[in-house]
Amino acid sequence: MRIAILGGTGDIGEGLALRWGYHADHELVIGSREASRAGTKADAYETELDSRGIDVTIEGRANADAAAGADAVVLAVPPYHVTDTVEAVASELVDADVVISPAAGMKRDETGVHAHPPSAGSVTELVAGAAPAEVPVVGAFHNLSAGRLADIDAELGIDTLLVGDDEGAKEIVGLLAEDIDGLRALDAGGLANAAEVESLTPLLLTVAQHNDGLHDLGVRFR
Amino acid sequence: MRIAILGGTGDIGEGLALRWGYHADHELVIGSREASRAGTKADAYETELDSRGIDVTIEGRANADAAAGADAVVLAVPPYHVTDTVEAVASELVDADVVISPAAGMKRDETGVHAHPPSAGSVTELVAGAAPAEVPVVGAFHNLSAGRLADIDAELGIDTLLVGDDEGAKEIVGLLAEDIDGLRALDAGGLANAAEVESLTPLLLTVAQHNDGLHDLGVRFR
Repeated sequence: MRIAILGGTGDIGEGLALRWGYHADHELVIGSREASRAGTKADAYETELDSRGIDVTIEGRANADAAAGADAVVLAVPPYHVTDTVEAVASELVDADVVISPAAGMKRDETGVHAHPPSAGSVTELVAGAAPAEVPVVGAFHNLSAGRLADIDAELGIDTLLVGDDEGAKEIVGLLAEDIDGLRALDAGGLANAAEVESLTPLLLTVAQHNDGLHDLGVRFR
Repeated sequence: MRIAILGGTGDIGEGLALRWGYHADHELVIGSREASRAGTKADAYETELDSRGIDVTIEGRANADAAAGADAVVLAVPPYHVTDTVEAVASELVDADVVISPAAGMKRDETGVHAHPPSAGSVTELVAGAAPAEVPVVGAFHNLSAGRLADIDAELGIDTLLVGDDEGAKEIVGLLAEDIDGLRALDAGGLANAAEVESLTPLLLTVAQHNDGLHDLGVRFR
């Protein structure tokens, strides 16, 4: 499968690229607003994987070029860039099997980090509203620590929750998630449940902040 | 420690009473709006524990009588009864060490179960606003399956999150939580984080609903 990771130069994009590069056998392309930056990062990920004996080619392109021809497009951009990014690449999304949204809206104030959803209810629903109607949107990978994901030596043993209204698209994302060793994909129902899924992200940061010895947290449902 | 479980005839109250009765050595008193109902349930819990070789006395009283003299008061009532219950027992709360709020606001609609916080932001903050200023309020036990808690044979291996602005009170609740085998108490910061903690409750129901083989879910941070 050809996977484009838009915003793939950021931390969650890096984690997904390295994990898919390490554990699976997909065509990976990193997207960024600047093709040169995407190329530099793609080379860095290749080098990191090569140092672990993994010979893989990772392309780097401008976001729209990265999205073109991809089967799965991951929107690994901050919530406030989601709409712009989708609009900038919309014509390249129509042939994709799925658009994947991992971002969660958060705000830090004097009391800590809190859920801060957009008016659409959640970032995943914001993406679904902005994306072409032809392409299904699935929310996933919200509740992962980017740093832990990018450290291939770090064991996961955690869950990722999938939300979406298209069962076939959710199944594809479930398989992509479980390509990553130690990551279990759980179905969290339709897009309407994305708000609760995205609320878990600030809670992970809060729990890590307040408990010695816990950091880069994920969660296991049991 | 003398623990009053107001609304202790309901499912989460039952689970806490049985677990504390089984694993710890506290004075337990069940509160209900009707003393006779509290007494009947308290007897039933005693019988259940006795069948497992645990000889414990559990009292049953009307809520205000239950709260009187208790060191810790658990408000195991539905969110829409929280304010009424606190007001009805307010004068008995002033000498308690802590009031514990385990309820989460939820609403079911055609898309599933969703977080439905009161205007205070969370049920825990609603309780904190209604309780006498002298007594600290700690949110805890939100993310537990009542059925699993009440089944003493069911292993837990899960976490409960504590929120509160009084560190001493939070420490007391952490000890009470960890009296229960298999339950780990984690600090989730101040009352302002209660909304995210309470949002996890509907998510547990959603994940259980959508995944075969998962039910009565809790969560482990790792």
